[in-house]
Amino acid sequence: MDHLTELQIKGKSGKQAARKLATLSTLTKNQALEKMAEALEKEYAIILTANAIDIENGKGKGLSQALLDRLLLTQSRIESMADGLRQVTTLPDPIGELLSRDKRPNGLEISKVRVPLGVIGIIYEARPNVTVDAAGLCLKTGNAVILRGGSEAIHSNKAIIQIIAQAAYETGIPTGSLQLVETTDRQAVNEMLKLNEYLDVIIPRGGAGLIKTVVENSTVPVIETGTGICHTFVDESADLKMAEAIAFNAKVSRPGVCNSMETLLVHEKIAKQFLPDMLEKYQQAGVELRGCPITIQFHQGVKTATDEDWATEYSDFILSIRVVKNLDEAIEHIDKYSTRHSEAIVTKTPENAKRFQHEVDAAAVYVNASTRFTDGFEFGFGAEIGISTQKLHARGPMGLPELTSSKYIISGNGQIRE
Amino acid sequence: MDHLTELQIKGKSGKQAARKLATLSTLTKNQALEKMAEALEKEYAIILTANAIDIENGKGKGLSQALLDRLLLTQSRIESMADGLRQVTTLPDPIGELLSRDKRPNGLEISKVRVPLGVIGIIYEARPNVTVDAAGLCLKTGNAVILRGGSEAIHSNKAIIQIIAQAAYETGIPTGSLQLVETTDRQAVNEMLKLNEYLDVIIPRGGAGLIKTVVENSTVPVIETGTGICHTFVDESADLKMAEAIAFNAKVSRPGVCNSMETLLVHEKIAKQFLPDMLEKYQQAGVELRGCPITIQFHQGVKTATDEDWATEYSDFILSIRVVKNLDEAIEHIDKYSTRHSEAIVTKTPENAKRFQHEVDAAAVYVNASTRFTDGFEFGFGAEIGISTQKLHARGPMGLPELTSSKYIISGNGQIRE
Repeated sequence: MDHLTELQIKGKSGKQAARKLATLSTLTKNQALEKMAEALEKEYAIILTANAIDIENGKGKGLSQALLDRLLLTQSRIESMADGLRQVTTLPDPIGELLSRDKRPNGLEISKVRVPLGVIGIIYEARPNVTVDAAGLCLKTGNAVILRGGSEAIHSNKAIIQIIAQAAYETGIPTGSLQLVETTDRQAVNEMLKLNEYLDVIIPRGGAGLIKTVVENSTVPVIETGTGICHTFVDESADLKMAEAIAFNAKVSRPGVCNSMETLLVHEKIAKQFLPDMLEKYQQAGVELRGCPITIQFHQGVKTATDEDWATEYSDFILSIRVVKNLDEAIEHIDKYSTRHSEAIVTKTPENAKRFQHEVDAAAVYVNASTRFTDGFEFGFGAEIGISTQKLHARGPMGLPELTSSKYIISGNGQIRE
Repeated sequence: MDHLTELQIKGKSGKQAARKLATLSTLTKNQALEKMAEALEKEYAIILTANAIDIENGKGKGLSQALLDRLLLTQSRIESMADGLRQVTTLPDPIGELLSRDKRPNGLEISKVRVPLGVIGIIYEARPNVTVDAAGLCLKTGNAVILRGGSEAIHSNKAIIQIIAQAAYETGIPTGSLQLVETTDRQAVNEMLKLNEYLDVIIPRGGAGLIKTVVENSTVPVIETGTGICHTFVDESADLKMAEAIAFNAKVSRPGVCNSMETLLVHEKIAKQFLPDMLEKYQQAGVELRGCPITIQFHQGVKTATDEDWATEYSDFILSIRVVKNLDEAIEHIDKYSTRHSEAIVTKTPENAKRFQHEVDAAAVYVNASTRFTDGFEFGFGAEIGISTQKLHARGPMGLPELTSSKYIISGNGQIRE
């Protein structure tokens, strides 16, 4: 037999584990999650030692302060990861749920039940908390997981996975259920993207570049997540105080995340009344402003936006602003530049609210609220594996049910087909 | 501006159409379907003339009789296509369905509603009926469709699409909703598989080769359909008369389709009692038999099966047969060779039925019935766009709801996120 690669070995092992995992009781899975949480808390010093190596290497490679901060673990951050696992034990187990049931005229009883996806590949960046988070959500939904985190976090991830996998396996979770790809070169990612024999789905979590690489190269089905060029349209009839609060929150509360706003669209009839104060408020908060020719008339600090600006996810304290003639022009603009993540209108006109909600094609469409709410926890799912920006399988924030598939179970008494 | 290819032009046009299509009423869509049916019936002679060219060309190229028969249209086959469209008008329209509704503690009202997927690409072989069938199902679900049929059917397909698209557009369906790729070279397929800007999903319909090409090369999300290495396991406790009827039906009733059986597994304790008559019956029906070393002892006509046999979808009057020790060995065999389409057990032991249903990983798992029932019509969906053998988005027979996505619509009164 040929020499097997790390991914083939782990793929095979994951697939074998998945078959057993699919039949485990909720109690067994919850006990494992609790033991994993305890192990993280007990062995935190081992993780911190490993993390210190990653941080040291990261500094040597000149990682930015922001990246180093994402990479850094502390005892309290490890405790948060453990709490996250405990939280997952409190969520309802979707596996086994009866989705539909029908008795056909020929007597066949057809039930549709929820089952795990099988083996899930997660490709992410140097955020060790994703290792625990994804492992917990996959385990709860009866899926085996193969994790491939950013190479900068490899020591932290190895320490974490060893601790949580051992704890899980000791409570009856099949070996192979929780695995980490230890090969850190890019070739391992390329191989993972073609591992159709063993992987049922790949979920990329990270920046636009990572997601693009996965979408363009994977032959394994992908759930595309995350990229967000989100808009807020302030309509002619908007309560301007509300609009100001929403537009400010959507940009400034956390500009690095995908549900934050990148472009503000303003109806021309209220632009003069609304924009001067709004733009001043942004500028005082340190937001760089890039506007259309009309917008720049309302505030000195606004640079001229280029076509590229409308198509850019800044993920930063930068905002593009455009004055539009009416709702149609706002919808046209959004249709052209949106990544179909989250879009908002501020209006007091019910017809416009309704048109916006129906005609704007996005995972989440808001009336009179900030786009920042697009999030599994804010939506009440109690968990989030990512935010899908594709239309297949899952759209918007993904909780536990989005990590499942279904299966038809048919019972007969000898039926044959004519 | 650069010269646009046929696919870019049609992709763009499809996307524009999809936005309007998504907002059309059920009545408008049903009226269009009815007009399309009428137009097919009225203009059948144009289609038959075009079809005659395809048949002539096909004979020149030496297409097999089976392929020529699939390609051939008659007035009565065109009437069946029209009836198919009328049938779709009677199905409930899934678009706009409220899937969930929740009011969050902060007052946000979050509704999840069913929306079209957008633009669907269908790649299929030389079966002109798929052109009408797919167009009707996509239209009913508010999706624009770009069809790419086998080059052998190009004249038929062009005639059909012109007739049905014109009828649809005259009743208010937006131009661009129903389109056919007229470029017949392979390059057009390759371009279609990378048309992420315009296509939301690609559904391949056809043989294993076509599906493999699409899955391996598409960067657009794919719903994999069709390949079926299906098994029937005759358990020790089986009602042998029932087992004989089911196993015969699963193989012989229509061996060319994906839900037919390729491998018969028989419990060793009843092999001697069951197999001699069963194998004789198959042989009399013209089925070529390839068996394991035990099987060949029970009938002279059985050749020795190779490892390759277990992994082959014959789609023909050929059957492989294996005697297994017990349920575990049957499940192991299925796990190794199944394409996870349809699997059946014949048993009187409830524990074995239950284990089989839970442990066998397939879209449809049967107890005491023929695998031939895996079909949208048999399942009562009233339609079928294909049978998904992947776990993402849809699994098993796909009806109208499987051609939809969802969208969150959120209403607030000024909520911002902390």
